[in-house]
Parts: sequence; C-alpha cells; structure tokens
Amino acid sequence: MFGKTTKLLVAAALVTGMGTSAMAKKVYKWKLATTWGPTLSPFIDAPKNLAKIVEEMSDGRLIIRVDAANKHKSPLGVLDMVKGGQYEMAHTASYYWKGKDINLLPFTTMPFGMTAPEQYSWFYYGGGMELMEKAYKRHRILSYPGGNSGNQMGGWFRKEINSLDDLKGLKMRIPGFAGEVLAKLGVQVTNIAPGELYTALERGTIDSLEWVSPSMDIKMGFHKIAPYYYTGWHEPATELQYLVNQKALKKLPKDLQEILIIAMRVTAYDMYIQNYHMNATAWEEMKKEYPNIKVKTLPKSVMDAMKKANKELRAEMSEKSPELKEILNSQDAYLKRVRAWTEMSDYLYLKDNL
Amino acid sequence: MFGKTTKLLVAAALVTGMGTSAMAKKVYKWKLATTWGPTLSPFIDAPKNLAKIVEEMSDGRLIIRVDAANKHKSPLGVLDMVKGGQYEMAHTASYYWKGKDINLLPFTTMPFGMTAPEQYSWFYYGGGMELMEKAYKRHRILSYPGGNSGNQMGGWFRKEINSLDDLKGLKMRIPGFAGEVLAKLGVQVTNIAPGELYTALERGTIDSLEWVSPSMDIKMGFHKIAPYYYTGWHEPATELQYLVNQKALKKLPKDLQEILIIAMRVTAYDMYIQNYHMNATAWEEMKKEYPNIKVKTLPKSVMDAMKKANKELRAEMSEKSPELKEILNSQDAYLKRVRAWTEMSDYLYLKDNL
Repeated sequence: MFGKTTKLLVAAALVTGMGTSAMAKKVYKWKLATTWGPTLSPFIDAPKNLAKIVEEMSDGRLIIRVDAANKHKSPLGVLDMVKGGQYEMAHTASYYWKGKDINLLPFTTMPFGMTAPEQYSWFYYGGGMELMEKAYKRHRILSYPGGNSGNQMGGWFRKEINSLDDLKGLKMRIPGFAGEVLAKLGVQVTNIAPGELYTALERGTIDSLEWVSPSMDIKMGFHKIAPYYYTGWHEPATELQYLVNQKALKKLPKDLQEILIIAMRVTAYDMYIQNYHMNATAWEEMKKEYPNIKVKTLPKSVMDAMKKANKELRAEMSEKSPELKEILNSQDAYLKRVRAWTEMSDYLYLKDNL
Repeated sequence: MFGKTTKLLVAAALVTGMGTSAMAKKVYKWKLATTWGPTLSPFIDAPKNLAKIVEEMSDGRLIIRVDAANKHKSPLGVLDMVKGGQYEMAHTASYYWKGKDINLLPFTTMPFGMTAPEQYSWFYYGGGMELMEKAYKRHRILSYPGGNSGNQMGGWFRKEINSLDDLKGLKMRIPGFAGEVLAKLGVQVTNIAPGELYTALERGTIDSLEWVSPSMDIKMGFHKIAPYYYTGWHEPATELQYLVNQKALKKLPKDLQEILIIAMRVTAYDMYIQNYHMNATAWEEMKKEYPNIKVKTLPKSVMDAMKKANKELRAEMSEKSPELKEILNSQDAYLKRVRAWTEMSDYLYLKDNL
C-alpha cells in the first residue's frame, strides 16, 4: 500500500505533467561564442565537448549553445560580447586582447616560455590562476584554461636559414608578439588572410609563414610547397581560454557552477591530449606523402638574437605596466624552478629514447 | 494567488519534510579503497579530490567515502574487494595485478615506454581505453586512468655506475618488472620494507634503491646518504588507476555516472600536474640543502643492455599470452608514431632552452 506522502507526490506529478524527479527542474540556457570556425578541430572540439558533458552531468539543467564565428560574425569580439552579457561564455585565447589590455597577453604562451605541463603547473599550483583572476576582474569576467595546442612549430620556409643574414628582408607571415621579435631581427613581417596564404607562399609573395603544427597545418597544404619545417620557439604551449560572465556564473545554483568549472578544466586537458594525438597522426601522414620535408632547428646565432630581442621587448612592455611585470616575473621564477625538473625527467629520458 | 499545482507541491513538501527541490533526492553512498596510506600525497589526493567534486557536482546525491590502507588493511587486496562488491571503487595501480593476470601489467607504465602526454594520447585517442576495458571485463570491473606520477627517477646510488661491470652483484631495492630487467644484468635485486630502506642504504645492506621522484623521495631522506641520483628508464609515466565495480556503476542514474566518470578523468590529469609541481619544488629544496647531489644518466652500455633484457622479457611474456602481445604491440606502434612528434616539438624545444 502507498502511504499519504506517495499519493501526494503522485498527484503533484500528474498535475505538473512531469515525473517526480523532474518536478523542481529549472533549465538554464546559455550561449557560448567561439573565435573559431565550426570545423576548426581540435580548437572547436573543446567547447563542443564542454556543452555535451555539462548537459549530461546536469541531467539537462544547463544547456550551452555553441556559436562558431560564422554565426556571430565577430571572432575577435567575443571578449566584449561576454563582458556585455550577449554571451554568457566564450572560447578564445587571451593573447588576442593585448591591444585592449596588455596584462592579458601572458596567459596564453610566451616565446621561450613554459611547456604545456610546466604551464598547467604554474596555472593550478604556481599562482597563475590567481594572477589571471586579478587581471580579468576589471573586465568583470572569469577566465579559465581552455585547452593547450602543445608546442607550435616555428613555421614553413622555402629556403634554409643558416645565419642571421638569412633573416634580413625575409618576408614572413607571423602575427602577434612573435612577429615583433622577428621584426627586430630584420624580418619583413606581413599579415595575410588565411585563405590566401597557400598562394602567397607558392608564388613567393612571402618566403615563409607560421601557422600551428601538423594537426592543423596539414589541411593548409604548406608541406607541398615549402620543404623546411622549423621547430618552435615562439609558442611552446598555447593555452586557449574560456571566458565566463561573472554575474551569469553567480546566478547558477552551486552544483551547476561546479559542473561548469570541472567541465572547463577537463575539456582543456583533453584538448591538449587530443591535439598531441592529432599532431602525431598528421605528421606521420605528411612524412609519408612528402618524405623530403626537413625538420630544422634555427641556428644558435639566430636563437640567441631572438632571445635577446624577446628580452628587450618584455622589458619595454613591463616598464609600462607594473602588473604585467608581476605576471612575467611569476612566470620566469616558476619556469626556472620547473625546467630543472623537466630536464632531469622527460628531457634526459627522451635523449636516450629517440 | 497560488494555483492548484503549487498547493499540491507545498503539501507534498510539508508531508515529506523536505524542500520541493529535494523531494526526489536519493542519496547514493559509496566506498573507495586506496592502496595508499592516508598521507601519501599526491597519490591519495586524487581520490580525495574525486570525492569532493563528485559531492559538489551531484549536490550531495553521490557521497564517496575514501578509506586509506590503514583503514581496510589490505593495500593489495583492493582489486578483489571491488570485484566482490565490498567496495564500489578503488584507487591503485594496474601493474600490481600482474601476478593475478599478466594482461593487466601494461596499463600503468612500461620500461622505455611512453611519457605522460604520449600515454594519455594512447589511452584516450590511440585505442588504449578499449584494450583496458577488454582486459578488465573478465574481472567484472571498469578501469580508468587515475593520475600520473610523470617520469620516475632511476634511483639513489651510493657509488657511480660507469660500466656494466659495476652492476654485477650490486645490491638494489627495485621491485616489479624493472627488477626483473636488472636481475638479468647481474644486479642482486632485493625487497625491503619501506620503513627500513633508509637504514639499509645508510649501513650498506643495499647499495642503491629506486623509490619515486623528488616529490615523494624527499620525505624518505635518501639524498642525505646517497649522492648519485640516476635519471629514469623504467617508469616513464606511471599512471595510477581507478577501479569501479561494473554493477555498482550501472545502478547509478545516468547523470551521476557521467559525473563520476568526468571526476575520475579530471582528478587523474590534475594529479599529473600536481606532482609535476611537487617534483619541481622538492627538487629545488633538496638541491639547496644538499648541493652535492649529482644527477646522472646510466652509461650507454648499461642502457643498451637493459633495453635488450627488456625486449627479451617482453617476448617471453608475450608468448604466454596473445592478449598481452596485442596490448604491447599497440603500445609499441603508438610510441613509434607519437615519439616522432615529441622529438620535433618538446624535445627539440627543450634542447635549446635548458
């Protein structure tokens, strides 16, 4: 026999037309804007996976619609859209905001900086998250790691680089801070739309270009026309970024807040691993099809000059912002400590196992 | 005015004595047994963090009690306890079960095998999870990655190793498969309880020992009495393991299953990063206190002999089990592909940035 309680519950369920477990269910509908196009794997996969696992973990109480750049038409407007509340979230990269706020530059990656595990250690255990929180507070936004590309390649070159002289007047597509470093060495840094890059490289309008790494370079086809693939120095661990509107997060019940935060954390790590896999697979494929691709490291004279230029640019920027200086100092101090461990663990292990 | 629905809901809530949102809340109480003691950080932190975030994400609907080894008294009995249902979960390491089932050996780490990001790539994107699922199915258990220690050090030695001759008769504490490899090279492999290791090394009962890495070695104090710290070869990426009773998992509602699976995944990644940080910090501290510690790599002749012995032992094991052979082949094929990427990305980057 059913007791009185059961009868009341059943009656209530009948009246509301829902099962008893769903009676109190309030659904939150969010929108997330990405900087990426709808097929830019693996970048776009992180927010898509986020939406999927958030829906599953919340039993449908938090639904996140992912709008790729072709939908909202403003790939580099996503910070403002989250700030203004048109979107509750975004998936993007912090270094895109250096023009708005120089203090947001170092939360993606820095030339000659930390590798992915080193940088995650800095974020989560070495004070990085606290510095990022502080930097984004004035934008009324919360920022979280959003997936790491791992070490990015230095780029595709039509000719070998043997000395500093070979850089003088070299026409290269390399945007952002890394471009500023190379400009100091006499490189003629240009910007060209992604869709025109292949033709520009093929026709010699540019001599070289930097894109990402095998996983994303393979679709661009640069390996078919430029045989030298230089190793990276400028983006050793590009961490993408989730942006969340502060007020929107606060309005969620505590359990949904936690579900969202954990989902951001796990999809970020996952994208790092997914891209590691994609790089390995794409590189194998490229090499098979074009066995003459040569992996090269820039000569020591060039490396040293780039390190010097990098240092000078950082000093200039730091002078303008004490907050930036604090962040860069934190990264430098952490790098020094953690690199000693990386050297005696993975580096020396790999040296004997290549 | 309240409608009829509201009145019924309120009535139901009054009768049951709960708020409307909690009316249908069923609480699942689980127990997790660890192989570790209650203070063995960072290993014990992974399941503790798991319990915490599962409780928060589920709004208290899934509560996991973590029992350390001092409570259940059976550190290496946790597989059987999960199989038998006394515990719904465990946190341990798969290579402990090689005596019960040789096919479970390779899911932790293998000598000269993959690094942590390489191995996570294999698990999640290279077929590793499917092979692990298959291997554990006959035990009616589900197994998930549970946190990576990163590259473990080769151990503390009182004297330098300059040749294969120096290994003959050397008394070393090194358990498991790595011990078998060294035994083939003439090392006198011994096992000594952890609590007696320091005295044994100090008095010369043993000449060397393998423990973990700076984060966990520092408390043992070996650096005070053995100046040579050899780099690792035997456990390049020790992945701990969550075990879950199949039936217990199926009894959870779908959303709680997903919460648990995501919580395992994120706490595993997190432990890898936490230990990376702890290693960097502990190594800095050790070096400061004992600046004479020398980090050494075993000479090439020794490395080559170990690689040969390792290959022979793997071939012997594989002959006894076609399933083991399948798993090892999958790892070998993946390693070959992924290592090419590791070399041209992180390895060559680090080479120029040490």
